[in-house]
Amino acid sequence: MKLKDTSKILQKLREVMEKGQCSELPLQAVIVPSSDAHQSEYLAPRDLRRAYISGFTGSAGTAVITQQNAALWTDGRYFLQAEKELDDSWILMKMGLKDTPSIEDWLSQVLPAKSNVGVNPSLYASNSWTKMENSLSKVGHKLLPTTSDAIDAVWDDQPKPPNNPLVLLDDSITGMPIKEKMTALRSEMAKKQADWLIITALDEIAWVLNMRGSDIEFNPVFFAYLMIGTNSVELFINKDLVTEKVKRHLDSMDNISVHDYSSALDFITSTCSLQKVWTFPGSSHAVVSAIPQSNKISTANSPVSMMKAVKNAREIDGMKAANVRDAVALCQYLQWLEETVPQGGVTECSAASKSLEFREKQDKFVSLSFGTISSSGATGSVIHYQPSEEDNRPVTADEIYLCDSGAQYIDGTTDTTRTIHCGNPTDYEKECFTRVLKGHIELSRSVFPAGTKGYMLDTLARMHLWRAGLDYMHGTGHGVGTFLNVHEGPIGMYIGNSGRIVQVASDVEIQPGMVITDEPGYYEDGKFGIRIENAVLCVEADTPYHFSNKKFLTFEPIAYVPIQKKMIAKELLSAEELEWLNNYHAKCLEIVGNELKEQGHSSTLKWLKLQTSAM
Amino acid sequence: MKLKDTSKILQKLREVMEKGQCSELPLQAVIVPSSDAHQSEYLAPRDLRRAYISGFTGSAGTAVITQQNAALWTDGRYFLQAEKELDDSWILMKMGLKDTPSIEDWLSQVLPAKSNVGVNPSLYASNSWTKMENSLSKVGHKLLPTTSDAIDAVWDDQPKPPNNPLVLLDDSITGMPIKEKMTALRSEMAKKQADWLIITALDEIAWVLNMRGSDIEFNPVFFAYLMIGTNSVELFINKDLVTEKVKRHLDSMDNISVHDYSSALDFITSTCSLQKVWTFPGSSHAVVSAIPQSNKISTANSPVSMMKAVKNAREIDGMKAANVRDAVALCQYLQWLEETVPQGGVTECSAASKSLEFREKQDKFVSLSFGTISSSGATGSVIHYQPSEEDNRPVTADEIYLCDSGAQYIDGTTDTTRTIHCGNPTDYEKECFTRVLKGHIELSRSVFPAGTKGYMLDTLARMHLWRAGLDYMHGTGHGVGTFLNVHEGPIGMYIGNSGRIVQVASDVEIQPGMVITDEPGYYEDGKFGIRIENAVLCVEADTPYHFSNKKFLTFEPIAYVPIQKKMIAKELLSAEELEWLNNYHAKCLEIVGNELKEQGHSSTLKWLKLQTSAM
Repeated sequence: MKLKDTSKILQKLREVMEKGQCSELPLQAVIVPSSDAHQSEYLAPRDLRRAYISGFTGSAGTAVITQQNAALWTDGRYFLQAEKELDDSWILMKMGLKDTPSIEDWLSQVLPAKSNVGVNPSLYASNSWTKMENSLSKVGHKLLPTTSDAIDAVWDDQPKPPNNPLVLLDDSITGMPIKEKMTALRSEMAKKQADWLIITALDEIAWVLNMRGSDIEFNPVFFAYLMIGTNSVELFINKDLVTEKVKRHLDSMDNISVHDYSSALDFITSTCSLQKVWTFPGSSHAVVSAIPQSNKISTANSPVSMMKAVKNAREIDGMKAANVRDAVALCQYLQWLEETVPQGGVTECSAASKSLEFREKQDKFVSLSFGTISSSGATGSVIHYQPSEEDNRPVTADEIYLCDSGAQYIDGTTDTTRTIHCGNPTDYEKECFTRVLKGHIELSRSVFPAGTKGYMLDTLARMHLWRAGLDYMHGTGHGVGTFLNVHEGPIGMYIGNSGRIVQVASDVEIQPGMVITDEPGYYEDGKFGIRIENAVLCVEADTPYHFSNKKFLTFEPIAYVPIQKKMIAKELLSAEELEWLNNYHAKCLEIVGNELKEQGHSSTLKWLKLQTSAM
Repeated sequence: MKLKDTSKILQKLREVMEKGQCSELPLQAVIVPSSDAHQSEYLAPRDLRRAYISGFTGSAGTAVITQQNAALWTDGRYFLQAEKELDDSWILMKMGLKDTPSIEDWLSQVLPAKSNVGVNPSLYASNSWTKMENSLSKVGHKLLPTTSDAIDAVWDDQPKPPNNPLVLLDDSITGMPIKEKMTALRSEMAKKQADWLIITALDEIAWVLNMRGSDIEFNPVFFAYLMIGTNSVELFINKDLVTEKVKRHLDSMDNISVHDYSSALDFITSTCSLQKVWTFPGSSHAVVSAIPQSNKISTANSPVSMMKAVKNAREIDGMKAANVRDAVALCQYLQWLEETVPQGGVTECSAASKSLEFREKQDKFVSLSFGTISSSGATGSVIHYQPSEEDNRPVTADEIYLCDSGAQYIDGTTDTTRTIHCGNPTDYEKECFTRVLKGHIELSRSVFPAGTKGYMLDTLARMHLWRAGLDYMHGTGHGVGTFLNVHEGPIGMYIGNSGRIVQVASDVEIQPGMVITDEPGYYEDGKFGIRIENAVLCVEADTPYHFSNKKFLTFEPIAYVPIQKKMIAKELLSAEELEWLNNYHAKCLEIVGNELKEQGHSSTLKWLKLQTSAM
């Protein structure tokens, strides 16, 4: 792979900084985060500013450029990749290592006194801004919002903004007309005495408007801002996309006005900011700082994110149906792997392509929901690995193969991981797999009182690994959208801990109707990776007793793909765990078997029967 | 029981408030918390100010008195008791119920604009003060430190401060000479660049000085303040107690000066506050506010509390030895119950006395470590119940009996709960007991990586109850001191959750050497209470693998009292759980059996053999 030579671009950027071409004062430093104006997880090509300036293409990282230095901060997942991709102009800052300074500390070492540090205020979440501003001001520097983006100023061939048609969803799919969503949101606004609710997260806007887009790979969203007033709705969007059909769809709301996307901030400043405005610390500093403190109402999560997380009956039906079709494709794929891998010639990339091929044939398929993780042997231990033309190991019958993949269907989003061996796993591999499975089952069949938060269940997925001195360095679960983002807040199952990848514990209660993943794993550096992941639906539990009249809850798996029995050390399973596994497999056969029959895949049905027979 | 008539005392107090006799300005309200100047859990008689003014004698509660009203806030444990004890002058505020206002909200409703609310700044922790001050200032009121205590001003027959002799501990018991403790603390001070470390918690002072007292029932502490400087130590204490022997003990430190207890605050203001001072938000507002902000260094926990929580080898030996002798007494007691209860005539009080009688005969016994919870049948469901002359149910062979008790020995502190039935438990009682036991075992035999915090293990103790729709409304465990407070911070195993008694999750990592209780329970209102509690020592686990070179930890029970087999539904135990139980019982027989033999209790040894035979 050829390194990107960033020296000339950096030279141009330093001129822009020095001359103050994108800021009110000359800048001694510029911070370039990995985000867009909506704090999206995945980015449109024109928003890959940090990758453009640094050459590092990983999904997480922050670039900081001063007149003398350029440094890139990224986490352990990306150390190797960043080392490969950065040229000599860059210093790699390995986050999480003892001797790595924070951005603030580094800046205080290298900057002259009273420097101005520029950031595009649209690309920085309000809470991150406040934190950085405080840290810098303590050592005498100033965090300055740029007036235009500094990278855009030096990016000659920056891609155009996306311009993809909108998809309108029928109420039979969403289960809730736009008008009802407006009523529900205005009722929340009334409780807060808010005159305006400003929604900046693209998946929240898509959910409220029952529309989807394809402006960002994997996430079926479109670029927009949405301001909900007590009597009006203001939508800021590429007006070219608002066809007559879209207009009719939107007109189901009263008093909706469509404005150009670029005028959103002006509207907030000139109109919203005069009244009480409900915003969120996760929205951009540009948006949040446009509201005077006295008019600001702030909560950690938006009411849309809470409503969206609890799926309604139609959405649940859709999620299940999408998972059944997805399971058909995955069963075909697993069968193909078991039959083809031993013959040789399969690679991580060709395998990933094959899985897409099966999925594309399914009804209502739209796209993948994230880049397929198709990893064989050693690469399986790189948790967020995706094969590429340069890194593309053969998939053989001598190694464990891990596939974490999912798709967007018009009626739902999927995310499933299976780990298989096409030859003979070792006893140690089986022990590790079985301990991961025990954790998966422990969480999946757990019963817990209403009010329980995700982090309180995290230990259940780890306890059987811990007993053997094993663990995994990632969260146990995340929310899943309905034909929306595959990683959906605000629910999550993980614990912020210095010993693991730093994540903040999700403080949201798990509620019936939420869909969350159950995905413990185990990774042995340079050898193999194991993960078993199902999407699970939170439902009420049928307990013999009801202490204190509490509701008790549990999970129902909604992914129906067999777990390879060859990988299981049966003697390590308890009677309850074995019963769970056999019941789960019986359900896979019943539900997916039916669909395979209807679709006429008799060979895969035969395969499925073998896979799901009782252990 | 005769109600205390508080009307005359309230009248006197309102005069004191109106005339500003204990404050710089007249007070429109006074807050009376349940604490002393050291934020102790248990109080000396002269510090029972809230009980004196309100008549309510429960351990937790806050009284607030205005010119027109008097209200008492307490939690669910004490609703019944408060209803019984409060006279007509008082409004009972039931904390945790939806319609109960907070103190701040209530004050903002009843007070005239711009009122002054007085609190004794020595009785309010700094963090509580800041919170209350902010809340009141938002609605225009002012929180005012009183210049002397308002209750003391109207309390004619207030008891004198305690004046009990000090107990000096030999290094062979403490395992760490005072001088070494000073060196360790000064090394922590150097890291923080602190010139002074101010210790206000009585158990921390006792630990540092290798001395004990008996100024507070159950807690072997003495009233004092301790200021550690870089080269000197300043002890503020009742000087009468500092005998020649005590002086020699203290002289093992260089440059120690002994001052009168009452001059501590003056010293902080005149001397410490001129330099960098390390204080804690849990110390009193009087102490913390005496240091100017620019000279203040603050951490959540004091370095003493962290050092004290990790027991050294001598302390561990002492804790184990104390638990062996305590187990002898408890075995004699349980045997006596099983033999005597069916004959009739035993009451909760007489049973508690009998248990004390057995304990008092043990070597190195000093006192109980808390009031014995001896509860039969329905009263067992009152979690913090203690029998009294008025409430004293018979203990019969028809009901479950719960005994939660412990003692102070010169070499260690114990806290053990056993639940037994002297007749025939029902299947339902056995199911509940067995689910509590499963949780106790799950936590006790858990293995977890270094870095795990208490709240991450809480779910393990509840999961088997949850499966049946059961739960308990208290924390799962607390630290235990070494011949010190039976409830010892900063370690704990509980989760702050609105659905349970409100507690803040302890954010401290569990470390080898810490002693913590494992005490899940189940309580059926008006019927019975079940709890199974052992003190457990955190030790390194011997795991087959060591992921990421991590240390893995587990617990070793150090209480050795048989768990009544009659209460166990064996079919609900897994093979691993049964194995744990049989191993635990074998260890009880080995360790306590030996001691019973040495002490010549052959009949109890015979009883123990039966109790501990394999199931």
